[in-house]
Amino acid sequence: MAPSNTSIKLVRNIPSGSPTLKDFKVESVDAPTKSSLQPNQVLIRTLYLSCDPYFRGRLSGTRDSYVASFEPGKPIEGLGVGVVEASTSSKLSEGDLVTGGAFLWETRFVCADSAVTKVPSNTGISPANYLGVLGMPSFTAYVGLVSLCNPKAGETVLVSAASGAVGQMVVQLAKARGLRVVGAAGSDDKVDFIKSLGADVAFNYKTCGDLQDAVKKAAPEGIDIYFDNVGGEFLDVALKNMRPFGRIAACGMISQYNATPETAYQLKNIVNIVPKKVSIFGYIVTDYYSKPDYKKFIDEVSTKLKEGKVNYKLDEVVGLENAPQALLDLFEGKNFGKRVVKITDSNQRL
Amino acid sequence: MAPSNTSIKLVRNIPSGSPTLKDFKVESVDAPTKSSLQPNQVLIRTLYLSCDPYFRGRLSGTRDSYVASFEPGKPIEGLGVGVVEASTSSKLSEGDLVTGGAFLWETRFVCADSAVTKVPSNTGISPANYLGVLGMPSFTAYVGLVSLCNPKAGETVLVSAASGAVGQMVVQLAKARGLRVVGAAGSDDKVDFIKSLGADVAFNYKTCGDLQDAVKKAAPEGIDIYFDNVGGEFLDVALKNMRPFGRIAACGMISQYNATPETAYQLKNIVNIVPKKVSIFGYIVTDYYSKPDYKKFIDEVSTKLKEGKVNYKLDEVVGLENAPQALLDLFEGKNFGKRVVKITDSNQRL
Repeated sequence: MAPSNTSIKLVRNIPSGSPTLKDFKVESVDAPTKSSLQPNQVLIRTLYLSCDPYFRGRLSGTRDSYVASFEPGKPIEGLGVGVVEASTSSKLSEGDLVTGGAFLWETRFVCADSAVTKVPSNTGISPANYLGVLGMPSFTAYVGLVSLCNPKAGETVLVSAASGAVGQMVVQLAKARGLRVVGAAGSDDKVDFIKSLGADVAFNYKTCGDLQDAVKKAAPEGIDIYFDNVGGEFLDVALKNMRPFGRIAACGMISQYNATPETAYQLKNIVNIVPKKVSIFGYIVTDYYSKPDYKKFIDEVSTKLKEGKVNYKLDEVVGLENAPQALLDLFEGKNFGKRVVKITDSNQRL
Repeated sequence: MAPSNTSIKLVRNIPSGSPTLKDFKVESVDAPTKSSLQPNQVLIRTLYLSCDPYFRGRLSGTRDSYVASFEPGKPIEGLGVGVVEASTSSKLSEGDLVTGGAFLWETRFVCADSAVTKVPSNTGISPANYLGVLGMPSFTAYVGLVSLCNPKAGETVLVSAASGAVGQMVVQLAKARGLRVVGAAGSDDKVDFIKSLGADVAFNYKTCGDLQDAVKKAAPEGIDIYFDNVGGEFLDVALKNMRPFGRIAACGMISQYNATPETAYQLKNIVNIVPKKVSIFGYIVTDYYSKPDYKKFIDEVSTKLKEGKVNYKLDEVVGLENAPQALLDLFEGKNFGKRVVKITDSNQRL
């Protein structure tokens, strides 16, 4: 009997507004078998899948983006970690731990051996870390803060969504460089977590009252670097509080991803960038894996990991069938830390 | 009898909205005399004064800016060119041509010798050029385009206010580097002028109909560099049309300088900078005079001037008493080229 194999498929594209559970379909499909492999392919059993804000763009159906949109009727795909169950590749063997950016949201799937990268197994750390502290969101933090904003000791950095997948690493990279760190997040638990990471000031943006007052209080002398994970009003307030020669890393604008033309936030303070000489850097992390920055990041964070000097919060949801809700929650800020889905399989063959 | 001496003074600060002639006072004052000079001072007769968009900030009364606001009851000051009529300085002599950023809007005034710089006289070119093709607006064009946006042959640059003090030099520096240049301005005469400078496409933003359609038609493949002199809707449309890895030089936002909180344009398309990986550089030219960029600029433009390969349009208004109106016109785009005021003095002593 073939093992159970669950597949999460997209029902329809959602150009704007908020996706719902009805936009996803949880199907039971035949599992791929070793005998079905073409040359240089691998059969992967999924261990962890990553839920990321950039998925919103991939749900939209637009062709005018930096990553292809998901197609209705086909499985969702994204970053993942899994174990090779069968291989016709000379480079990968059964039992290898692999990661890659085109994991299907299925219990098992087949892909070319070139689509995944082998990573160390049996290290005692959870494979989920390859989606977290050493993964894409963490490198995203490095590129935005270190590569683009060139932080200097004594400067003040403001981080929105500071407990999130990217933000928590921004806080730690900034503290390690001697910056004064102001973090914001959407619950008191998250605020406590940000403080535990070393942030000098942290506040709950949902309960702080007027956001301008909160930022002004947290950084009365102004902001040298704003690490923007949310866009919208937060970006506008940051623009108002930038110091001369300030830098903004435009990493993501999750507050706007589900906005419609009617509800989209309209920015009022962009004019400040001229007299304050502010630079704003939009970027996508995938452009930086082939640059020296990637090795520098891995070296720095690996060393910190070994020394126990880095803290990284994963928010684990269990069960592939719960992945759509896990993603929807992310768009509403209900995650606490980097959201991953752990795939359970009661019918493992290996 | 002392020579005539006119002084243009500010009546009141104008925090927002449009200044009017009533906000300025044209006074006849006693001219300074040689005998009143302290050591290391010069008495300057003003030849040309510069009207620049950044004056709007200096009229506002705000202390929170990169240049001090003008003070009610005191003369306006800014960039100018003049001739030394008397000197107690060992560095400057009678007859020297000088330029500087703190020229009073007076027929004659006294300042420290350190506040002005001697420039070549008797070169056959008008002293007004030190406010134009070799002056601050022209260097502003160089910094925004060359130093910050790193233009590459074959790229497309969009320039707003392309016939203005800065824009006309952006067009020429970009063409010299092999870019495709799209220029916009507010009259058909200006559009013809932009084309005469070598722009590949130029359009009248006041009569083009929908601005998005006009930009899309002029640059169907999108924009690599947007040189922003105006802000507001034009910036928003540019943001919508940026190509991947696009750069925006945020040089000035004159469309917004007289805006009130109620009339200020609200930006809708900032979210595009993340997927399109766009960088935006706010800057002020005065930060670049001490960098190698300044010498490179002077070398390049001087050479072009000698070879007759640069064209620069001055918009000359005659008479110090007309300077306030000349400035107000600038805020409404009524200038055509770099606006300067030529000071006439029927009572020259030298």
